[in-house]
Amino acid sequence: MSGCPYFQKRDVLFQSRQQQKDEGERDDSQDGTNKASKGGIIYGDYLQLDKIVTAQTLQSELKGNKIHDEHLFIVTHQAYELWFKQILWELDSVRDIFISGHVRDERNMLKVTTRTHRIVMIFRLLVDQFAVLETMTALDFFDFREYLSPASGFQSLQFRLLENKIGVPDNQRVPYNRRHYRDNFRGEDSELLLSSEEEPTLLQLVEKWLERTPGLEENGFNFWGKLEANIAVGLKREREKLETKPESEDKDEQMAEFTKQREVLESLFDEKRHDHLMSKGERRLSYKALQGALMIYFYREEPRFQVPFQLLTSLMDIDTLMTKWRYNHVCMVHRMIGSKAGTGGSSGYHYLRSTVSDRYKVFVDLFNLATFLVPRHWVPKLNPTEHPFLFTADTCCDSSYCSSVSDDSD
Amino acid sequence: MSGCPYFQKRDVLFQSRQQQKDEGERDDSQDGTNKASKGGIIYGDYLQLDKIVTAQTLQSELKGNKIHDEHLFIVTHQAYELWFKQILWELDSVRDIFISGHVRDERNMLKVTTRTHRIVMIFRLLVDQFAVLETMTALDFFDFREYLSPASGFQSLQFRLLENKIGVPDNQRVPYNRRHYRDNFRGEDSELLLSSEEEPTLLQLVEKWLERTPGLEENGFNFWGKLEANIAVGLKREREKLETKPESEDKDEQMAEFTKQREVLESLFDEKRHDHLMSKGERRLSYKALQGALMIYFYREEPRFQVPFQLLTSLMDIDTLMTKWRYNHVCMVHRMIGSKAGTGGSSGYHYLRSTVSDRYKVFVDLFNLATFLVPRHWVPKLNPTEHPFLFTADTCCDSSYCSSVSDDSD
Amino acid sequence: MSGCPYFQKRDVLFQSRQQQKDEGERDDSQDGTNKASKGGIIYGDYLQLDKIVTAQTLQSELKGNKIHDEHLFIVTHQAYELWFKQILWELDSVRDIFISGHVRDERNMLKVTTRTHRIVMIFRLLVDQFAVLETMTALDFFDFREYLSPASGFQSLQFRLLENKIGVPDNQRVPYNRRHYRDNFRGEDSELLLSSEEEPTLLQLVEKWLERTPGLEENGFNFWGKLEANIAVGLKREREKLETKPESEDKDEQMAEFTKQREVLESLFDEKRHDHLMSKGERRLSYKALQGALMIYFYREEPRFQVPFQLLTSLMDIDTLMTKWRYNHVCMVHRMIGSKAGTGGSSGYHYLRSTVSDRYKVFVDLFNLATFLVPRHWVPKLNPTEHPFLFTADTCCDSSYCSSVSDDSD
Amino acid sequence: MSGCPYFQKRDVLFQSRQQQKDEGERDDSQDGTNKASKGGIIYGDYLQLDKIVTAQTLQSELKGNKIHDEHLFIVTHQAYELWFKQILWELDSVRDIFISGHVRDERNMLKVTTRTHRIVMIFRLLVDQFAVLETMTALDFFDFREYLSPASGFQSLQFRLLENKIGVPDNQRVPYNRRHYRDNFRGEDSELLLSSEEEPTLLQLVEKWLERTPGLEENGFNFWGKLEANIAVGLKREREKLETKPESEDKDEQMAEFTKQREVLESLFDEKRHDHLMSKGERRLSYKALQGALMIYFYREEPRFQVPFQLLTSLMDIDTLMTKWRYNHVCMVHRMIGSKAGTGGSSGYHYLRSTVSDRYKVFVDLFNLATFLVPRHWVPKLNPTEHPFLFTADTCCDSSYCSSVSDDSD
Repeated sequence: MSGCPYFQKRDVLFQSRQQQKDEGERDDSQDGTNKASKGGIIYGDYLQLDKIVTAQTLQSELKGNKIHDEHLFIVTHQAYELWFKQILWELDSVRDIFISGHVRDERNMLKVTTRTHRIVMIFRLLVDQFAVLETMTALDFFDFREYLSPASGFQSLQFRLLENKIGVPDNQRVPYNRRHYRDNFRGEDSELLLSSEEEPTLLQLVEKWLERTPGLEENGFNFWGKLEANIAVGLKREREKLETKPESEDKDEQMAEFTKQREVLESLFDEKRHDHLMSKGERRLSYKALQGALMIYFYREEPRFQVPFQLLTSLMDIDTLMTKWRYNHVCMVHRMIGSKAGTGGSSGYHYLRSTVSDRYKVFVDLFNLATFLVPRHWVPKLNPTEHPFLFTADTCCDSSYCSSVSDDSD
Repeated sequence: MSGCPYFQKRDVLFQSRQQQKDEGERDDSQDGTNKASKGGIIYGDYLQLDKIVTAQTLQSELKGNKIHDEHLFIVTHQAYELWFKQILWELDSVRDIFISGHVRDERNMLKVTTRTHRIVMIFRLLVDQFAVLETMTALDFFDFREYLSPASGFQSLQFRLLENKIGVPDNQRVPYNRRHYRDNFRGEDSELLLSSEEEPTLLQLVEKWLERTPGLEENGFNFWGKLEANIAVGLKREREKLETKPESEDKDEQMAEFTKQREVLESLFDEKRHDHLMSKGERRLSYKALQGALMIYFYREEPRFQVPFQLLTSLMDIDTLMTKWRYNHVCMVHRMIGSKAGTGGSSGYHYLRSTVSDRYKVFVDLFNLATFLVPRHWVPKLNPTEHPFLFTADTCCDSSYCSSVSDDSD
Repeated sequence: MSGCPYFQKRDVLFQSRQQQKDEGERDDSQDGTNKASKGGIIYGDYLQLDKIVTAQTLQSELKGNKIHDEHLFIVTHQAYELWFKQILWELDSVRDIFISGHVRDERNMLKVTTRTHRIVMIFRLLVDQFAVLETMTALDFFDFREYLSPASGFQSLQFRLLENKIGVPDNQRVPYNRRHYRDNFRGEDSELLLSSEEEPTLLQLVEKWLERTPGLEENGFNFWGKLEANIAVGLKREREKLETKPESEDKDEQMAEFTKQREVLESLFDEKRHDHLMSKGERRLSYKALQGALMIYFYREEPRFQVPFQLLTSLMDIDTLMTKWRYNHVCMVHRMIGSKAGTGGSSGYHYLRSTVSDRYKVFVDLFNLATFLVPRHWVPKLNPTEHPFLFTADTCCDSSYCSSVSDDSD
Repeated sequence: MSGCPYFQKRDVLFQSRQQQKDEGERDDSQDGTNKASKGGIIYGDYLQLDKIVTAQTLQSELKGNKIHDEHLFIVTHQAYELWFKQILWELDSVRDIFISGHVRDERNMLKVTTRTHRIVMIFRLLVDQFAVLETMTALDFFDFREYLSPASGFQSLQFRLLENKIGVPDNQRVPYNRRHYRDNFRGEDSELLLSSEEEPTLLQLVEKWLERTPGLEENGFNFWGKLEANIAVGLKREREKLETKPESEDKDEQMAEFTKQREVLESLFDEKRHDHLMSKGERRLSYKALQGALMIYFYREEPRFQVPFQLLTSLMDIDTLMTKWRYNHVCMVHRMIGSKAGTGGSSGYHYLRSTVSDRYKVFVDLFNLATFLVPRHWVPKLNPTEHPFLFTADTCCDSSYCSSVSDDSD
């Protein structure tokens, strides 16, 4: 490579190829061998382009009034569906790792995090993709819109599957024209949706995994018990400090704020309140899982929790990006059809607007946990000797050190 | 709408649907009618999803060693091809408007600019799209790479068509493994490529259009003649001003710089030099077209040139984004295969690197025109009375207005 | 340039500089002259970097508890403020062109559109910018959050100015802790806000400009009168066609839909209803301006309306991006503080959520106009001879043609 | 919260605030307390906006010829510098963790990876940011360009510091107008640069860290020795398999390809060749560090290597994004000034183009390692009992688990 300046010569320069050949230089960029003649698969067949790039049939053209922009409309939606397929592929693989219990082998955590993060990256692209469709104006859309009825984006099977598999609960869904969302699908599609509702959702699988968070064992590290005790002590001290201050309007306010904060923090340990919020759909994770999530938050820097913490972050990213996607969709629809009905007969803008809601945020608990953060020195201390479960083997297994701790390892 | 608070209630709130119904409120978001049962086309059929989302066959799975990430590889490339199809659709429509002479009806300029701008927006998305594929690491790729041979991105028919139709000239192409690029395609594909080379390219069509720029007529406004004269006067004055300065090192330097600038500007009017640069591929637009482009640059604020100026900007955007796409592609390939050969047998990284070059910038002249800008007061003045061609009908047909401005026009 | 292969050699290659020098080749990239020693301004002084990159003082550090991530928090907000400054710069210049009446000289339309489009591009960046701040987790934020009180993003003077100058009306604003938004600012800032409320807003200026749309004159082209007549005829014909169909459930439904559509279209011509909607803030443009906007929509391809149409599109883009910005802000805040109060004492998430609303969409009428689109053949025909006002001077002024139309030009 | 429909009412709706108050509803969004009057810092002071938003002085205005677009030019560059400051902040903190040896405490790996990833996210924004500056055309730039001389982006101290601290080696830098890059800086700046060259670079620190990769110990797991042996065996078997095939042109080719592959793989173990490549700058990591990196690649799924693998990926991301930044910069400059000289007197486009090179890719070895990947079954097996260093303490310290897996480990 280093001996061949030829390739770089061509760069930027405007020499004709002939000139270059005349100069008789070698050319790195030409060092390959043609393999296409040797059998095997070629690009177009590999990607099944005969299907992909022939699947654009304009309804307007069929009706004798070909409208140029319908092609963009079709391709954009097909691109969305392609990527939904990919998201489902990643989502299913992540769910499979959880379902088969492989996530207990922590080697699989890299896969789980990487694939979850990939879903994040895809959604980021999909949010940006609206900018392309928005090059079409309301007037262009009007020209072919009548031909589409009753096709509607609501009918996207893959998007509904996606929602179900992540964990949008049936009873939180906004109905579609007063009908259950599933009644808008037929035959095999309806069955696929039903079975996706019955399979374990990502939410449920993450919940089970969080419930197993090492350190929650009451007869072990007992994180939750320790945390409750520490918070009680912390609040008591804060109150005492406040009370020593001389009376003033300022003090009254600080006390009021303190009381508010105390109520918030104490509510965290109220299991009945949790169950009540669960029943209303305001919380989605079990009480135990919530504890696991908060534990991972507080000890995220421990080697064993670093990747789990990243996973929780990616799950929030997905939730956020899905609501951003919905919101971008709403904005586009508002622009395209004003306040008219959707092609499928829905109330259009209003229906979509109603789905941009925390009701559809599956991992809403992970966001709300931010409400319950406490100062670092209130967080129960971990001692590697006593509680080695969050450390690497080297730290504790190494030499004599390991034997000393091996007795009380859980 | 305004009387219906129901829809907003649902937002953010965590009421169950049942609760809402119990409260007996109306719900804007449910005002639609189900149309899907009434015949007509539905979403999945409209988008031919039976083709689109079933076209992912993993070679690794066929060979009995299913590799998860191959699915991402396939979907990403299919998404690229879908968007290439859309770009070709826009490109062909723009070329058709030019070919059929419809662009002489200036009503079509909005279409031309909008569609060209849409290509820009799509390429922007395609450049970002690499971020998704880059979630796959070299190690993941290695696991299925052997199954792909000899498929290669080089074989993308649509991308080659795209290059040809925009106007990448055959003699500027980097060969592929020492063979003419077209020899890597077979049968019908090869013919499609050949015919795309024979059709008028976007570059050629824009060239013809630029040559017709109103104001170039030597017996009319004679922009080129006036500009040459103005530049000569301008340079002369600048030189005179410089010469009055007392001798100093500084003056010498300014004089040297002035001489350099003068040479650059004078070269603009050297048609022979232009033809020489054309023959080497360093310029691509005819001498006349170059004049038209510069004229649009200088008078871009005149009503009639506003949209043409936007078009020239979009053409540069496309060029820029195509080289950014190539460069992003190179970066990804470097990461995936290091300095190994490509799957198609090319020299991989080196081949691709060689195509990130101004040789592939079709509208390179539009960029280089920036070299020839002059102060605004050197630009020949336009007078609406004498030269109404750049104005709206109102401006000049309204007799009273016309006469009133004719006196004090600068 | 073409004779110098040196520069390209260096590319990709790993030769040391010394090697290259030994080979004695010329180097295009080194052809410049050092000017920095000759006086004049240098980079750092030009950009006043002594101010810009020294303005990061961590409150946490001042309080003796330096938190790494506070630096990101500061820089991100400073970047927002820098860009807000730029948006105000563009916005003020656009408003000035309108205020001074310069927009009557249609040469200024390119400036207006370009600068408006630039605001769009900046907002697009600002929406993406949240992704950077989101690399900070709730826990990181918690560590320094207490030091910020009572600073709050609500206090961003520039953002409030921005809203006022675009045209968010005072009576549509969500109060901030039950106080008028302006009461949260002091002294000079409060006065700046007041005066920004009193200056003509972009909305008002666009309104005045739309009211002047050529073609609205009742004694001229009389677009509105002609449109109303055409719609009446169109609806009548549609109704007659429907009525000839044999009775059926289908027919009933189509008739119901037709009635709905007729009501919508007829409401367009109900000036009283318009005034009523205006008074409630559901419409923001005067009746005349609305007519102008719809006229530009329908005749957007006429040379004189191409750029105005782009302007209307950009105004919608700004509205959309501002609500996306708000929504992204909400999402970030939810993640950072859960459902806690904001640092400034606001209800945080809830306050922000309430501002992601059509109440804050200034150009909401431009979106809603999509509700009133009609088939192209219902749009009143323009005849260049009779109505030359939308054409270029060439079309009508040229030779004899011009004199023939000059009589009835308006 | 759930009992309060008020806030949601406001959403989308167009009720005036007065109406809402009349209805006497409670309003979640108004639950906060005003704190701004209570002392403490407010937004504008916290962000030192008196410096940030007053630092825009147009040279063109000073010279009596105010050019609108100069403001954009200033703000864009200031935004770049703000973000460079943030990148340096993250970079310095990451380097400090390495320098102080804190990275040996693996708890710090989350910080290192998160902050490195944050640099990636910032660079992604900076690459996109060019789209804003590109709304300025060459003509707009020409109008104020003369006032900037001799200021030049080359003089960005922070960007040079950034390059130095990451590890762009002095001897790989392209000179600037035939002068050492540092000679273009004066006084304190020059000293800062010199000292940044003398401090340990990120490259060097990562190198030292990679050299310590557990598993490289020759008297321990001896990864490198085992890998060399496995590759030898693997290649031998492949050769034998090939040799059994009947003679044919195909076989000859496969043999040729095999030979090529063998040479590549064998070169990996040639330390002399490595040192030679090091001396030419084609490799940057020590032989030992290279081994560590490849080991992390191959065992990335082991719990202890998951985060280190992410770090290596982020380092490549930074390299890639920095070259993309450079390339985007080149593209913008080409558009702005054609092939003219830069404002600082450099050869402009050509100088910048020459810096988009693998010479400036600091972690080029991490990319090139992709060249040396081998099938998974050639990778030496790890046994948790024998080699516990890559596992979590739980896995190996839990005696029952350890003994149970030691039998069937593969």
